[in-house]
Amino acid sequence: MKRQWFKLPLHQLLQALNAGEANLPEVVTSFYERTAKRDGQIGAWQYLIDQEDYLAEYESRREFYDASPLKGLPFAVKDVIDTADIPTTMGSVIHQDRIPDMDASCVTAMKAAGGILMGKTVTTEFAYFQAGKTNNPHDPERTPGGSSSGSAAAVADYMVPIAFGTQTAASVIRPASYCGCVGYVGSKNEFSLRNIQPLAQSLDSLGIISNDVLDTVLVRNILLHKSLEPMPQASPLPYTFGVFTGEVLGPVQDKMLETLAGCQQELAEKGHRQVDFPLQETIAELTTLHGQVMAFEVARNLEYEQQHETLGSHMQALIGTGLAFPYSDYIAALQKADAMKQTLLQWFDKSGADFILAPAAPGVAPYKTEGTGTPFMSRAWQLAGLPVVSLPLGYYQKMPMGLQLIGKPHQDDLLLLQARQLQQLFLNEHAAVAV
Amino acid sequence: MKRQWFKLPLHQLLQALNAGEANLPEVVTSFYERTAKRDGQIGAWQYLIDQEDYLAEYESRREFYDASPLKGLPFAVKDVIDTADIPTTMGSVIHQDRIPDMDASCVTAMKAAGGILMGKTVTTEFAYFQAGKTNNPHDPERTPGGSSSGSAAAVADYMVPIAFGTQTAASVIRPASYCGCVGYVGSKNEFSLRNIQPLAQSLDSLGIISNDVLDTVLVRNILLHKSLEPMPQASPLPYTFGVFTGEVLGPVQDKMLETLAGCQQELAEKGHRQVDFPLQETIAELTTLHGQVMAFEVARNLEYEQQHETLGSHMQALIGTGLAFPYSDYIAALQKADAMKQTLLQWFDKSGADFILAPAAPGVAPYKTEGTGTPFMSRAWQLAGLPVVSLPLGYYQKMPMGLQLIGKPHQDDLLLLQARQLQQLFLNEHAAVAV
Repeated sequence: MKRQWFKLPLHQLLQALNAGEANLPEVVTSFYERTAKRDGQIGAWQYLIDQEDYLAEYESRREFYDASPLKGLPFAVKDVIDTADIPTTMGSVIHQDRIPDMDASCVTAMKAAGGILMGKTVTTEFAYFQAGKTNNPHDPERTPGGSSSGSAAAVADYMVPIAFGTQTAASVIRPASYCGCVGYVGSKNEFSLRNIQPLAQSLDSLGIISNDVLDTVLVRNILLHKSLEPMPQASPLPYTFGVFTGEVLGPVQDKMLETLAGCQQELAEKGHRQVDFPLQETIAELTTLHGQVMAFEVARNLEYEQQHETLGSHMQALIGTGLAFPYSDYIAALQKADAMKQTLLQWFDKSGADFILAPAAPGVAPYKTEGTGTPFMSRAWQLAGLPVVSLPLGYYQKMPMGLQLIGKPHQDDLLLLQARQLQQLFLNEHAAVAV
Repeated sequence: MKRQWFKLPLHQLLQALNAGEANLPEVVTSFYERTAKRDGQIGAWQYLIDQEDYLAEYESRREFYDASPLKGLPFAVKDVIDTADIPTTMGSVIHQDRIPDMDASCVTAMKAAGGILMGKTVTTEFAYFQAGKTNNPHDPERTPGGSSSGSAAAVADYMVPIAFGTQTAASVIRPASYCGCVGYVGSKNEFSLRNIQPLAQSLDSLGIISNDVLDTVLVRNILLHKSLEPMPQASPLPYTFGVFTGEVLGPVQDKMLETLAGCQQELAEKGHRQVDFPLQETIAELTTLHGQVMAFEVARNLEYEQQHETLGSHMQALIGTGLAFPYSDYIAALQKADAMKQTLLQWFDKSGADFILAPAAPGVAPYKTEGTGTPFMSRAWQLAGLPVVSLPLGYYQKMPMGLQLIGKPHQDDLLLLQARQLQQLFLNEHAAVAV
């Protein structure tokens, strides 16, 4: 019987290739077969590279790929990330014929490390709220979340092992939570955003979506030109964390709060140390300020699109809000946010906390009739520029739920190591979609 | 006798057009005639729009332009800023055939306000040190400075009234100082950088080069969608400032120090208040850290170009340094820089200072055999994300010298108002090139 290679995370596929247990065309074919079987229902791909072209590229430079870190394995990128000679439409009819002349730097880095682009994944219009065609792999009546909808759905459904997304509000962490994958958003400015279409310069971040923290770490190391040595197996224990339920921001499902409490308890039992997290009002205010900063900046980044009547109504409304928002209030918002970020950093320092544990979304993915879900669980951290990892740690109504770990600025290495331990602790027992 | 419209700053041209003293084709022709006469010697333009095409564009939408804020007047942009259907080469042979499909958002905003693109100005290769063809308008044997070489030279020589540049180290402030124009670099994240080719995400800023602070303010207000009302004539007096000579960073010409001392004295005589600026070591260390952060980030933004042998030797060396620079040291540099920025902000708060007054460059423009000059007078402020305005306030060996005002983050409005007053105080007596 044929091995179901598509089920394996990237680092295990590399092991199998290195050990001669698999060959690259066989693995790639497995992902394409999975896609052929599933994508009609899910609609994660905006543009899929032809399988023959993919394999021809591999064969044409086989020596390079076989010796490379990624060995010709596939990756996907959200359709706001430019790809040379391949359409990049930003989910908008305004750009339906747009074919960039250059790859984004993250794409170039992946290709240089031996990755092969499998295709572009669906984004909401300009990475905002207007939903694309993608359905949640766990229930096609539900949203995959936005805006990195296709990236999360494609990875969760095993059509590709790794995908890039972008986050300005909650666009990586929320779909990762709704679809049941690992979402990671780097500290502000951690990665080059060259040739990624921006929304809001104070907020935009690159994200990585995978099914295993080790895969996230590998791809991150490639982007940063770090050593590709395996991650150390253990970090200094115990670690210290605060808990933020998010209820001050809006309604949170009981099952999500139970999942959070269960994780807290499990951590306590393993000897980790919980400290008080008193900054409820700070987070609530940062959440409000995020919306103001985002509206102001989006209205000035989408100069071109606001001249087009075909721009979707969600984005038109945001731009209207942003254009009406006074500059002096925008500056005041940035300055308040700076001060609150300092307060947050002081809490980290004083409490000795490594991370904050919080729901990655208010609950399971809503039905599509309700839109792509609410971003309130991410806005505050995004405005403060903190790194975040979300892990699928809960289940309700056969739908996955994620918890997020929010770390200190530029402590992404440590945060990912601790996320890896949490993933191991829960033994991947809540793995993604049933195959 | 024909009026020499090209000598007037933008806001005076608008007044003349509004008063019916000039018509747009006559003014535009004046800039093109100036260019025809001068650019053979100066080489500021990388790509010049044909005059007939320019005027045809104006005639085709004359009603729109006549009613618009900029009335069809010309602007120029540095050749790292994308322009739809017009080559954008980043000063590199690697991209000599590159024609973007979209305008940068700053270009779109100018066009929407009734500006017409006159052309692209020469940049050093990838806005770094490899000089382009441009000569200093005051002495063709000298450098115009880099990297916004063509923007500064074109504005100083009255070939266009306003031009955009970009700054990662000193690429707006230094050429403005060398060429004798007004340079302005916004607070970090003040402007959309959409479709401007990045060098280093923690440092890159948009800049505006003009011959009058009022023009800078007008264009800034257009980019930010602020009210285009005229600037208030006076700000609250007296203001408070610190002085930084820059000698802790490297050799500064005596004449530059004299210019600085003269300005200090004049300000004191007018009742402004000088306070002590003790942070010499902080600025020196920020200057060093800037170089580290820049090298690390450039090496990860120029993924594509580092695969090309035709990349210039200066950039190859920087990328080599950046790739060899350990990630942990990069993170340590960012964290030290954050702490030092806080120290700087505390000094502003405690001293009540509005700005720091400093040389904009170590002296007059060096001869071209010595390269494009050194960026050390700008690195620290750039890493701290502070807004800067430089004004041509001195002269030596028939060459202009600039002083810079460094303000508090996001206090760009106030800084520009005070720069305007300083400009008035010195009565434009050291105006740009002799015509």
